[in-house]
Amino acid sequence: MTLPSSPFETVYGAVQPLDWLCLAPHPDDAEIGAGGTLIRLARAGRAVGVLELSRGESGTQGTPLERAAECVAAAEIMGLAWRGQLGLPDGGLADTPAGAQALAATLRAVRPRVLVVPHHADRHPDHFGTYSLAKRAVHLAALKKADVPGEPHRVSRVLLYQGNADIRANLLVDVGAVMADWEAAIRAHTSQFSGAYISETVTPEIIERRKGRLTYWGTLLRVRYAEAFETEEPLLVDPERL
Amino acid sequence: MTLPSSPFETVYGAVQPLDWLCLAPHPDDAEIGAGGTLIRLARAGRAVGVLELSRGESGTQGTPLERAAECVAAAEIMGLAWRGQLGLPDGGLADTPAGAQALAATLRAVRPRVLVVPHHADRHPDHFGTYSLAKRAVHLAALKKADVPGEPHRVSRVLLYQGNADIRANLLVDVGAVMADWEAAIRAHTSQFSGAYISETVTPEIIERRKGRLTYWGTLLRVRYAEAFETEEPLLVDPERL
Amino acid sequence: MTLPSSPFETVYGAVQPLDWLCLAPHPDDAEIGAGGTLIRLARAGRAVGVLELSRGESGTQGTPLERAAECVAAAEIMGLAWRGQLGLPDGGLADTPAGAQALAATLRAVRPRVLVVPHHADRHPDHFGTYSLAKRAVHLAALKKADVPGEPHRVSRVLLYQGNADIRANLLVDVGAVMADWEAAIRAHTSQFSGAYISETVTPEIIERRKGRLTYWGTLLRVRYAEAFETEEPLLVDPERL
Amino acid sequence: MTLPSSPFETVYGAVQPLDWLCLAPHPDDAEIGAGGTLIRLARAGRAVGVLELSRGESGTQGTPLERAAECVAAAEIMGLAWRGQLGLPDGGLADTPAGAQALAATLRAVRPRVLVVPHHADRHPDHFGTYSLAKRAVHLAALKKADVPGEPHRVSRVLLYQGNADIRANLLVDVGAVMADWEAAIRAHTSQFSGAYISETVTPEIIERRKGRLTYWGTLLRVRYAEAFETEEPLLVDPERL
Amino acid sequence: MTLPSSPFETVYGAVQPLDWLCLAPHPDDAEIGAGGTLIRLARAGRAVGVLELSRGESGTQGTPLERAAECVAAAEIMGLAWRGQLGLPDGGLADTPAGAQALAATLRAVRPRVLVVPHHADRHPDHFGTYSLAKRAVHLAALKKADVPGEPHRVSRVLLYQGNADIRANLLVDVGAVMADWEAAIRAHTSQFSGAYISETVTPEIIERRKGRLTYWGTLLRVRYAEAFETEEPLLVDPERL
Amino acid sequence: MTLPSSPFETVYGAVQPLDWLCLAPHPDDAEIGAGGTLIRLARAGRAVGVLELSRGESGTQGTPLERAAECVAAAEIMGLAWRGQLGLPDGGLADTPAGAQALAATLRAVRPRVLVVPHHADRHPDHFGTYSLAKRAVHLAALKKADVPGEPHRVSRVLLYQGNADIRANLLVDVGAVMADWEAAIRAHTSQFSGAYISETVTPEIIERRKGRLTYWGTLLRVRYAEAFETEEPLLVDPERL
Repeated sequence: MTLPSSPFETVYGAVQPLDWLCLAPHPDDAEIGAGGTLIRLARAGRAVGVLELSRGESGTQGTPLERAAECVAAAEIMGLAWRGQLGLPDGGLADTPAGAQALAATLRAVRPRVLVVPHHADRHPDHFGTYSLAKRAVHLAALKKADVPGEPHRVSRVLLYQGNADIRANLLVDVGAVMADWEAAIRAHTSQFSGAYISETVTPEIIERRKGRLTYWGTLLRVRYAEAFETEEPLLVDPERL
Repeated sequence: MTLPSSPFETVYGAVQPLDWLCLAPHPDDAEIGAGGTLIRLARAGRAVGVLELSRGESGTQGTPLERAAECVAAAEIMGLAWRGQLGLPDGGLADTPAGAQALAATLRAVRPRVLVVPHHADRHPDHFGTYSLAKRAVHLAALKKADVPGEPHRVSRVLLYQGNADIRANLLVDVGAVMADWEAAIRAHTSQFSGAYISETVTPEIIERRKGRLTYWGTLLRVRYAEAFETEEPLLVDPERL
Repeated sequence: MTLPSSPFETVYGAVQPLDWLCLAPHPDDAEIGAGGTLIRLARAGRAVGVLELSRGESGTQGTPLERAAECVAAAEIMGLAWRGQLGLPDGGLADTPAGAQALAATLRAVRPRVLVVPHHADRHPDHFGTYSLAKRAVHLAALKKADVPGEPHRVSRVLLYQGNADIRANLLVDVGAVMADWEAAIRAHTSQFSGAYISETVTPEIIERRKGRLTYWGTLLRVRYAEAFETEEPLLVDPERL
Repeated sequence: MTLPSSPFETVYGAVQPLDWLCLAPHPDDAEIGAGGTLIRLARAGRAVGVLELSRGESGTQGTPLERAAECVAAAEIMGLAWRGQLGLPDGGLADTPAGAQALAATLRAVRPRVLVVPHHADRHPDHFGTYSLAKRAVHLAALKKADVPGEPHRVSRVLLYQGNADIRANLLVDVGAVMADWEAAIRAHTSQFSGAYISETVTPEIIERRKGRLTYWGTLLRVRYAEAFETEEPLLVDPERL
Repeated sequence: MTLPSSPFETVYGAVQPLDWLCLAPHPDDAEIGAGGTLIRLARAGRAVGVLELSRGESGTQGTPLERAAECVAAAEIMGLAWRGQLGLPDGGLADTPAGAQALAATLRAVRPRVLVVPHHADRHPDHFGTYSLAKRAVHLAALKKADVPGEPHRVSRVLLYQGNADIRANLLVDVGAVMADWEAAIRAHTSQFSGAYISETVTPEIIERRKGRLTYWGTLLRVRYAEAFETEEPLLVDPERL
Repeated sequence: MTLPSSPFETVYGAVQPLDWLCLAPHPDDAEIGAGGTLIRLARAGRAVGVLELSRGESGTQGTPLERAAECVAAAEIMGLAWRGQLGLPDGGLADTPAGAQALAATLRAVRPRVLVVPHHADRHPDHFGTYSLAKRAVHLAALKKADVPGEPHRVSRVLLYQGNADIRANLLVDVGAVMADWEAAIRAHTSQFSGAYISETVTPEIIERRKGRLTYWGTLLRVRYAEAFETEEPLLVDPERL
């Protein structure tokens, strides 16, 4: 199988070594699931990226072109270093050999230390598909002999973010200080968040609903707004920082 | 051991056979954890009760007398049929023989079909203590030969409500139609919800926080506001109503 | 990819909007896993359907033709509104793009409100395969822009039924009133339930064994016979009906 | 605190070193939960015992004297080496210092290698109470310096048996060969199993119900009847025997 | 009930506000379960304390006096700021009102930010008892109106350490740099770790075994030696430090 | 699809009916995950086999030819009856129709009673892939009408062995008596265990690390070294042997 030399497109910024990379099955999933955390990291000077796996071409509203423009606008608000597009089929994301090679090549190109992926329990099959594909690609990216362009790269840590299902969060990030940008970044996806009822999950109250979620997690640890993550491995921590 | 003929006091309404009874470790726990559901039931004509196990005498603010008056005000807003007080020690709720006898006698007196109790995973020891005590008392109340005043009574169903910990909710109740009364009932506990910072969980934003929780659960099933419950046994359902 | 205008065959009844649809990897799986519940619903006047995903052509006994005839006989006993056949490969059921399109098209045609699918923990790979395929197809069926014939349709609720593994049931249905029909519907699959030892799970005692299972679940909630289901999301309930 | 030299009574057989001991909160719990396994062991020549923690004096039917006689009859059928009575309060079984000392002294007297106790998830508080008390007593029995009569003794293995709740069984025992004795041993508790409706769990169909449970577990591993157990620790096994 | 003005004794160091406090049911439990982490913290300049709840008077070897001396020696090696003794009964640790008041008073005196307690799944009843007692005492210590000497104090974070059971660790601490002190601190308990077979868990190979445990956890995250902890709540983290 | 008459190669020994077969995604996985148990079984006279699914051609070091020779050397040390190679793609192991047919044909040829497969929770995608493929192949191997060469064969029991993730072990095997051979069998894979740093998991301390893991599990049940397994179904046991 011949892969193109670059299996991904750059939508915003420049290809560069990233500290954090968030995988989004569709445009706006990263903002909704982990946007506050990504903004916090960017403000702290970290190189943060987002990779959309599909163009969202099966979504009810917005053309791929419109959605790419919205991705650029949101990237600016969030302060991303890079945003890319893998061009896999919306509705058909799964652990396939070609998808794994393309994602592994992208990981080798942008070399993230931390990878943030959708939680496998989500009811959307593309979220589970992205999770599975990521597991395979993380492995391939690190294998010297894998048939993947680029220098081998090992991701250090994988976090799962919440989609539409309850998760067993074991990590919370206080995002109270960046709520204005968080909301602006989501609203930048104007084809989706116009205030109209677009789908069962995208409704006029979508922002209020997502704030409610941040409030829920925050309440557990007595902060105003928090994003929730789950890790499948224990977390290596410095006790001095607990 | 001799128990007084009535181990409980009536705070509001009259002793009568109840459809639902909610056990509250302290005044206001029932409103916060299950208030919307209790209001929905009362509006539908069900006889709904609340039993406080302690007077909340260890709380930072509010005397037992003030809190009893607040309980009456909230009972009126919620439309309760009965509200009682067991007078066990705040901070010391646990599965003790005397407590179990007193609670069992109360269950025999008000004969609830459904019992709602705090979730055992809550970090507050009185919540776990109430859960354990309820399990023992439900058993004693049904035993003909138990040394408990009153006619034996069997509770049909036990639901757990959420306190301050994440739970694995398997039942949600849409409370969107009763939010105004829900908020009024909570605010009726004026010694607690004055808008001042009283404790780590009772802060000026407490209402907003609790609404955020209802939003979180609602979002999972696409309603505006939902209260969450967990059952330890499977639920016997009519499939026609699913 | 070109799909035939109708990716499924009708085996019994007529294509129509259904209240409940049960997905069966092979003929007889629906009867064994959820038959009592389907009969109860049909008796209550609901439009109930069953879709076999394969013809059971890899089974030890019974030709596809014989098994289709048995499906008709069982459908009559159960009072089904419709029974269909998807014709996917027995032994090879999995989440594939073509399978998902075919199943999504069928969901759009018969438009079930509730979908009942095999539990993912079953040891039979076709049961897990059906579960995964259903998750993808439910999503595609609801997407306006999906390349699937028919009008978009959203399934409201997904229940998992038990195969050959222990499950964490959270819903039980009392099927005591329909046990005679339940047994008749299973015995209608005469090629499978002839009283001979056909496979490890299909033995002369199969009916007694399956009754034992219904008894087990019933015992937990003190009814004679119950079928068990698991849901992955919490259940939105009317508290008045609990 | 002074304990009587023997904190237990012998109901049947003689005090002797036992291979297996089953703890029963009330007379008949051992038969119902683990009877088939105990019979199998006795037939294989093992010294098997049962210790009732209470006399079942709070049960609806049967005096303590009648129930002790039934225990003797059942012990004969099962082939027990010893059956004892601890005389703790029915309805009040819990982890108390005096109870733990009495049970530890009994464990030192009959020195079981394997201890079988009720599962902690059971809805009956005495079942959870017996589980907790056993955990404490197992520890005390092994401590040289504990204030407990008798020589220190260490139980090697603890198994949990099923009461009235679903459990996550990890061990099954085929009891098909001893079903006649199993039923006879249960029926020996004539005050409880007279065929009358005595309580919600003891009904005319109780034997059929309990057989249904054995069938359920058997079906999972393709034997006719099996009893289910859960262990909290992994099981050390000889791979040659798997 | 009248409590002595100081319900605890100081064994080593001086009463002072602590950053971390580890609760040990018996002398040496803190070293074995969390010693490496405590040493790391002390070396980083944190005020670290250990509180023994019992004197270990039921242990097979070592008098309370000898064990207190060993506690002093180990405290010096670990660099503790304070080590105390609560004097509750070995073998009888449980959530009792008097124990909770004594422990709450101690928490108010030494005011730890982080509290480390035994995991509830341990087979030793004193470990579960310490866990339960700690939950109650943490609550009482924070209640202004609680009948507990001292100024109210709120613990910020509770971690569970491993005893003799497998746990679902979600936090690991790299202790490779302090292994020599870790071993020395354990060996300081000479009455227990003399190289003789003292009990089933204290054997000549105890150090090798405990190192094996640290290796196991380390292997999961590719460090040499790690201690494992579990938290019941999600962890609030700074993403910049992940 | 036409399969070659023999989809596998024999690397060592002769094709024969096996008692146990261990599936290894890559050469050396069987030794590391289950080597001690396999050696114990071989010493007890059982016919034990290992099947590598891939040649490990994507590994950093060692050619397929070198690794096959190492497999032979390790097979001799372990006393295997047979070792085979399936030749599926390293890095791409998954549940595919062709892979399932090839594995099913191999199972029919060597007819194992017990099958040992990698745990699905492992972070390596080939481990999950092998687990999934095995589930499908076990089913196909038993189906009379499956398009698979050879006589139908049913595997009696499936065990999962540990890779690089924590598992919920429910079975432990004492391997203390075979540790020398266990280490020799691992070291026979000289291209991997040369003492050099080859990958994150294969480091100079790999043997010490793996011994640490055996020690960890052993400590739970008080043996020196134990291998851990998990089963998805309960285990049918003879109580006499517990």
